Amino acid sequence: MLSSSLEKYADYLRELWACQSSLGKAKLIAMIKKTLLTGVKPTGMPHIGNYLGAIRPALQLSHQPQYQALLFIADYHSLTHVHRAEELRSMTYEVAASWLACGLNPDQSLFYRQSDIPEIFELSWILSCFSPKGLLNRAHAYKAKLQENQEAGRSDPDYGVNMGLFTYPLLMAADILMFSADQVPVGEDQVQHLEIARDIAQKFNNNYGPLLKVPEFLVQKDSKLVPGLDGRKMSKSYGNHIPLFLPAPKLRKLVMKIKTDSSPPEAPKDPNDSLIFSLFKEFASMEETEALAAHYRRGISWGEAKEALFQAMDKVLAEPRRHYEELMADTQTMDCLLEQGAQRARAIARPQLDELRRAIGLGAMV
Amino acid sequence: MLSSSLEKYADYLRELWACQSSLGKAKLIAMIKKTLLTGVKPTGMPHIGNYLGAIRPALQLSHQPQYQALLFIADYHSLTHVHRAEELRSMTYEVAASWLACGLNPDQSLFYRQSDIPEIFELSWILSCFSPKGLLNRAHAYKAKLQENQEAGRSDPDYGVNMGLFTYPLLMAADILMFSADQVPVGEDQVQHLEIARDIAQKFNNNYGPLLKVPEFLVQKDSKLVPGLDGRKMSKSYGNHIPLFLPAPKLRKLVMKIKTDSSPPEAPKDPNDSLIFSLFKEFASMEETEALAAHYRRGISWGEAKEALFQAMDKVLAEPRRHYEELMADTQTMDCLLEQGAQRARAIARPQLDELRRAIGLGAMV
Repeated sequence: MLSSSLEKYADYLRELWACQSSLGKAKLIAMIKKTLLTGVKPTGMPHIGNYLGAIRPALQLSHQPQYQALLFIADYHSLTHVHRAEELRSMTYEVAASWLACGLNPDQSLFYRQSDIPEIFELSWILSCFSPKGLLNRAHAYKAKLQENQEAGRSDPDYGVNMGLFTYPLLMAADILMFSADQVPVGEDQVQHLEIARDIAQKFNNNYGPLLKVPEFLVQKDSKLVPGLDGRKMSKSYGNHIPLFLPAPKLRKLVMKIKTDSSPPEAPKDPNDSLIFSLFKEFASMEETEALAAHYRRGISWGEAKEALFQAMDKVLAEPRRHYEELMADTQTMDCLLEQGAQRARAIARPQLDELRRAIGLGAMV
Repeated sequence: MLSSSLEKYADYLRELWACQSSLGKAKLIAMIKKTLLTGVKPTGMPHIGNYLGAIRPALQLSHQPQYQALLFIADYHSLTHVHRAEELRSMTYEVAASWLACGLNPDQSLFYRQSDIPEIFELSWILSCFSPKGLLNRAHAYKAKLQENQEAGRSDPDYGVNMGLFTYPLLMAADILMFSADQVPVGEDQVQHLEIARDIAQKFNNNYGPLLKVPEFLVQKDSKLVPGLDGRKMSKSYGNHIPLFLPAPKLRKLVMKIKTDSSPPEAPKDPNDSLIFSLFKEFASMEETEALAAHYRRGISWGEAKEALFQAMDKVLAEPRRHYEELMADTQTMDCLLEQGAQRARAIARPQLDELRRAIGLGAMV
């Protein structure tokens, strides 16, 4: 009995779905799924640390069935400090290609460039009229600059601060509130930005009614600390990073450079005290990991361990690398994908902004 | 001979004009005429002081043949402090109707609402990335707020300052630079804003080449000091103002309230020491002014003088008042006019923004 009525319900849902327009479908999805929004700053080709700590977990999250994922490239955020056109353009393509190559599905997730959604900038102005300046004075990135200037003994506390840097939490709030995001995955250092967005949304709603969805944060516990070639946290600024899509021979060469101690090959080694092993287990299966751990305990030469790491990495990365190179060789395909994403995103943003404009008292009376 | 070749040149120009597309025509106008840009904040129905000190001189300037005038309603600027929809909407209509009633010709001048030009807000973000924060710290309106807080003994110097107030010189720069304005008429208190716009344009141009036109200011010498009913400067905040489009009986009543001394009717009076006379000459012809001056010197009762003033005002204002009332009774006509203006304005703004985006390195490679 139960199974038969479930069957009927499923049929009903299928019929309901079939007769919806694309707008109706979008609305149904919004009713059922939570909107998950992630912004990615264009910083060029990511490294292994970015992949393991940010890209892979974000994609895993976005594939969970309860979410409708929105993922955008925050190219206009980079304009606060990238003032060379070629650099901005290539970094944008590289980051777009990287996410696509790593498994972002632009049919399932909404993938767009921030700069293709003009509604965001208008919303940013609206929000600014409801943001106390004190809120921005306390933003971490700005305060870090103030401290830097103080430590350097500069008389102007705002030396080197442009208004883009100072106001970018406002633009970020617009990025989020434009799409009524339910949840925003953030690292612990980004929690404050989300709190700013929540504050502003509440201030706006107090005045005009509940028009802006107050987003929840989904704090990503201390994102995985991925070690670089020298054992410190992997970072471009330390120069100890492994770019994600190096051709195999270059990847092998870099892996071989990982710092090791001088213990002899036959000496038993503790896998849990090995940088090579900690990277290996991110790329290998459980069985492979256990096998390598046993090899460590029996005694393994660093050369062998590095070779195993390279093989495991190459196995996982070869296909995405091929895909990345293909995308980078034909940026028009990405432009086209991103353009389609922007159209779908604007189909959400436009009616949302129109509603806000009516509430504020702008435009023609209706 | 000369007249015949001039004739030919005129024929050539006529032909050239006839075969242009509307874009071509716009370009030709831009080559020949200087762009004059004026923004008007919606503050509801203007008063006589606004009319004599701002509206009338601005319209006179915009009618000069060397100018292509752009006149916009800065409705989004008002959002920094007007947070009630009905208030913002009615103030916007009232100011639009006032300018139209006073002689703004929307076929000759480009007349639009700021909020209908989304390109302005995107440009505002671009400009923010080239604006040192120090530039905004020094803006007068913000500094006045700081001082107010200091004088009130408040511990938070930014008390009551929202980001809209703090950043609005940036939005104003975008208003101006979006349309490559050649000249911007400003009161002396607005010179700083234009200097900010010039500074930012130069910073942007230093980086990307001369893409933004650096506007010139056209300083309006101390705009006419129009006295109010009590002899102080006419101002809504003093409650001594005469609304521009009062129905005639109410206008007469207000004029009768103008403060006078107790000198007897038959006493000779100095026209140059009379508030009534100083208003009268703004509305009357040279002959009428001289006749009233003579009457003053012979001796005139204040009642007669006021009646003369009312008659002169009513003669000038009756037709605009009728037009104003007609427009306010049918706001759809204004919506339509403003919408057409916005379309023409966006036809200028869009290609300009596209060019800036390409220079910055945004969007698809072309």
